[in-house]
Amino acid sequence: MPSFPKQLSIIPVPGIPEIKPGDDLVRILAAAAGEAGISIEEGDIVVFAQKIVSKAEGRIVDLNEVEPSPFAESVARTLGKDPRLVEVIFSETTKVIRMDQRKPDKGRLIVETRGGIISANAGVDASNVSGGDRVTLLPLDSDESARKLAEDIKRAFGVDAAVIITDTVGRPWRDGLVDIAIGCHGMKAMRDLRGGLDAKGMPLIATVMADADELASAAGLVMEKASSAPVVIIRGYEYEKGGTGAREIIRDPEEDLFR
Amino acid sequence: MPSFPKQLSIIPVPGIPEIKPGDDLVRILAAAAGEAGISIEEGDIVVFAQKIVSKAEGRIVDLNEVEPSPFAESVARTLGKDPRLVEVIFSETTKVIRMDQRKPDKGRLIVETRGGIISANAGVDASNVSGGDRVTLLPLDSDESARKLAEDIKRAFGVDAAVIITDTVGRPWRDGLVDIAIGCHGMKAMRDLRGGLDAKGMPLIATVMADADELASAAGLVMEKASSAPVVIIRGYEYEKGGTGAREIIRDPEEDLFR
Repeated sequence: MPSFPKQLSIIPVPGIPEIKPGDDLVRILAAAAGEAGISIEEGDIVVFAQKIVSKAEGRIVDLNEVEPSPFAESVARTLGKDPRLVEVIFSETTKVIRMDQRKPDKGRLIVETRGGIISANAGVDASNVSGGDRVTLLPLDSDESARKLAEDIKRAFGVDAAVIITDTVGRPWRDGLVDIAIGCHGMKAMRDLRGGLDAKGMPLIATVMADADELASAAGLVMEKASSAPVVIIRGYEYEKGGTGAREIIRDPEEDLFR
Repeated sequence: MPSFPKQLSIIPVPGIPEIKPGDDLVRILAAAAGEAGISIEEGDIVVFAQKIVSKAEGRIVDLNEVEPSPFAESVARTLGKDPRLVEVIFSETTKVIRMDQRKPDKGRLIVETRGGIISANAGVDASNVSGGDRVTLLPLDSDESARKLAEDIKRAFGVDAAVIITDTVGRPWRDGLVDIAIGCHGMKAMRDLRGGLDAKGMPLIATVMADADELASAAGLVMEKASSAPVVIIRGYEYEKGGTGAREIIRDPEEDLFR
């Protein structure tokens, strides 16, 4: 039986400034954390909001430079959306999962992205981007972005920390948004408890926990969309090193009853 | 702009024994927490795993006393399940959302419960129940269960704490399980950021966070299905009092694109 779990600390890092394309996120984190007297320790999990990773990687599109196709124009009319935004969404999309046009000005477009994330508008987002008509796209490969950040953390802080990149998404059946892991490095994104025994000695069946998603949600509690806490440190969580990234959490479409 | 979020502590309470029907959970919690030197403070969120709430409330069925209907027998054959278990699942179900019979011995039954939760097997669960063929059902009204627990906490500890009851569920599109809130009292389950401004002064659109679900996931990280930490205290999270329970998170079926 595993040892009793430790207490976790969920630590938002204050003082992260607005991020611009080309910024070195870990250098900025090191400065902000140092200023706040926060260290990064061996075994910490450092959680980055997708928005700042996208900005640092220059994944920003100015809608004024987008020429919508006739198809995007037509979908945009149907859904009551900006046709330039629809064009950008489609450029990120491999499959439309649902399109809801019942409300003329509040149409919904749920799509699968190239990275396998299913979300509204392919994660294309206008909030928290300064400069009129600019939107952010998800990182091209969030697991690779997480790998690079973990490498930079190793270099800057001299410790092995896991890295998770989160996005805020809606879900079927339940209202409200939650944070999930779209990128992960340095820890297994899933925790397989199968084959173990429960506290009463009964075998645990079908218990594979989406650890990286639960960590993303825990960090999301203090990321506070409105108050600039896009980096959060989780301390005390015992994870298994290795794994193949957040991509591991994406369900095989063959096994998915809701696509 | 809101103040910078505080650090959170996620504190598993050790020493909770096996729970039996009729047990007073808060009395047991008080003894275990006292023994471990853990206090419950004003503004804490006390998170209970559904399993122990169900057990204390006597929501246990002995499959040996279940007489499956011919319909349950037939569905059980199709899905490779115990017909008595299928009978119990159907007794908790208002609507079958998906039935997957492609794998003869691993059929899936995703249903909506009377309480509006959508999950596999209506939350009927055999793990962590001692005594051969016994299974637990979800509490009859988890928001009401949370209300009673909050009242008992007020009486035992003299503080106002919010209470969340969690269950572990699967999700469309993503593998692995996460913990969600099926009951909530003493805090708003959802946090509405609409109308506020983001860090750059842009209006926040459509940002309603499912706070209670993110808190459930944070607690789930240390609940450790295998090691008896069914009560977790979350400290430092600033929530709004009031609200109408976890039921608030259940999406209006009219608005749901996936039922």
